[in-house]
Amino acid sequence: MNLKYEIESRAEKFNEKLRSFLEGGSPVELYDAARHLPFAGGKRLRPILAMLSCEAVSGNQENVLFYAVALELIHNFTLVHDDIMDKSHLRRNIPTVHIAYDEPTAILAGDLLFAEAFASLKEIENDYLFREINNILIQAIIEVCEGQKLDMDFEKRSIISEEEYITMIKKKTSALFRIAAEGGAIFGGVDEEKRDAFKRYGENLGLAFQIHDDYLDMSSSEEILGKDIGNDIRNGKKTIIAVHALNHAAGIEKQRLENLFGKKDATDEEIKEVYSLFKNIGSIEYAKETAYKYSEEAIKSLNILEQSYPKEILEELARYAIKREK
Amino acid sequence: MNLKYEIESRAEKFNEKLRSFLEGGSPVELYDAARHLPFAGGKRLRPILAMLSCEAVSGNQENVLFYAVALELIHNFTLVHDDIMDKSHLRRNIPTVHIAYDEPTAILAGDLLFAEAFASLKEIENDYLFREINNILIQAIIEVCEGQKLDMDFEKRSIISEEEYITMIKKKTSALFRIAAEGGAIFGGVDEEKRDAFKRYGENLGLAFQIHDDYLDMSSSEEILGKDIGNDIRNGKKTIIAVHALNHAAGIEKQRLENLFGKKDATDEEIKEVYSLFKNIGSIEYAKETAYKYSEEAIKSLNILEQSYPKEILEELARYAIKREK
Repeated sequence: MNLKYEIESRAEKFNEKLRSFLEGGSPVELYDAARHLPFAGGKRLRPILAMLSCEAVSGNQENVLFYAVALELIHNFTLVHDDIMDKSHLRRNIPTVHIAYDEPTAILAGDLLFAEAFASLKEIENDYLFREINNILIQAIIEVCEGQKLDMDFEKRSIISEEEYITMIKKKTSALFRIAAEGGAIFGGVDEEKRDAFKRYGENLGLAFQIHDDYLDMSSSEEILGKDIGNDIRNGKKTIIAVHALNHAAGIEKQRLENLFGKKDATDEEIKEVYSLFKNIGSIEYAKETAYKYSEEAIKSLNILEQSYPKEILEELARYAIKREK
Repeated sequence: MNLKYEIESRAEKFNEKLRSFLEGGSPVELYDAARHLPFAGGKRLRPILAMLSCEAVSGNQENVLFYAVALELIHNFTLVHDDIMDKSHLRRNIPTVHIAYDEPTAILAGDLLFAEAFASLKEIENDYLFREINNILIQAIIEVCEGQKLDMDFEKRSIISEEEYITMIKKKTSALFRIAAEGGAIFGGVDEEKRDAFKRYGENLGLAFQIHDDYLDMSSSEEILGKDIGNDIRNGKKTIIAVHALNHAAGIEKQRLENLFGKKDATDEEIKEVYSLFKNIGSIEYAKETAYKYSEEAIKSLNILEQSYPKEILEELARYAIKREK
């Protein structure tokens, strides 16, 4: 199987729909600001996941495209607002919306993307589907807001349990993955039992993706100073690696970690030391193992489905989630 | 008729529903931040308008309460975000959300209110109503975003036509009034022809309210320095009064106005001079007349309805819109 082709062909189809949906609008600057991030690329994982899940229950991927647009717009709305909250300057290699425009326009652009996501659901003709999809989308958005708040709050706390961390990314990241798979399957006409399989697949895939992201960011000591990782360490960002290290450090290592992690003016040397601590404690390896575990969970969730090519793609996607290098 | 009683009894009923809907939630700080503004009072005009419109076509006001909650939450979401954009410190006599908490929490609280508004629509059992109400709510939210952007853009431009100003407040303020009346009537089982009457009533009532607000803010020279009006003048805020004055000033008055309006460091004396210019040009009186015109339009829109007590309340509400002193 050529996973790259399977992903890209669907992304292309999706991008066409997205492009036509986001055309026009006035005041032009507001709509340009809203288009800024969604038109700057991105992996389109949530739309692709929705399309594949629909196909895996013999549905037509065409039917799910408006829902896929809604998922991607919601994802982008949360990124636009998160970037303001986190004061991030770059995303997808271009300036974030509040940098390219200004903060008031970025807040509004995020709000508009939120509203446009629901506007795209109007195209769902079937009343049952319309209601079902509205319900799961709203539920997920509420979870994403809660997850983002937890993420911010965690930075201010010294110790976070792994359970708390998992709860946080289940909300912040996995909720949209979960409903992408679930919603796609609903469009395909899934039954109740299988619907649950898609939910578990999406949720575990989201966890695997997020944890592998944490791992990737930390996996090369040479590169880490060139990334935002130094800043994440200075801000006390609770990735799974940091969470594991803070919970498992002992003795002198514990002391050094408590001194350096979250130290606003940490030097590059100190950042490197934190990295070494993470490595020695086994936290980087632990992240890799944990991502693997969730990827396996995702694949296992699909056992209930009959064999099909889209199902194989979903399985391959879960393997890719923890193998990719960017 | 005791309009005050009619308004307050409905507001009370609404507040009860709102209170139970917004209970609980975790992380607590996020939900507290989301409750901060809606629990700080407010006139509840949009909910009351929805209830009365439902009653005016013999509907039961009970049926419309979840929609009323959605309207009020959307209104509050826009206020929370607008206050960040405008850097406002006070609203309803308490600190704004981003002051009482912080800006990231306020952005999220606004997003959560947006999502919770749609969550409250879940309670609508009838599929047709659910879809219809979703559609008009989304359309109005998009207009409110567009209107807010126009409002911000107008501050940077020197001349705005009255037509542009009306377009802006139709979106920013009237859209929610319009769908409050329209949606309420839909819940009451209105027919197509009368539905349009409610839309026009709501839109014109919104215009009358907003323009009377502009008028009230400027109607007393003694008080104006104690309000944000000085700041509005310094920021070049395009109220209908400013729009009228800038379009009708001539000679020396025009020159003074162009020099002083939007002057960031204008002294209190200069603010008073701008006020005198507004008065001499007739712009304050013009605002009063224009509010009156839209109030009359609103009342006229209702002619098509059969006489009823709720209809009389709506008429009285339109008169009150331009008589109130706060």
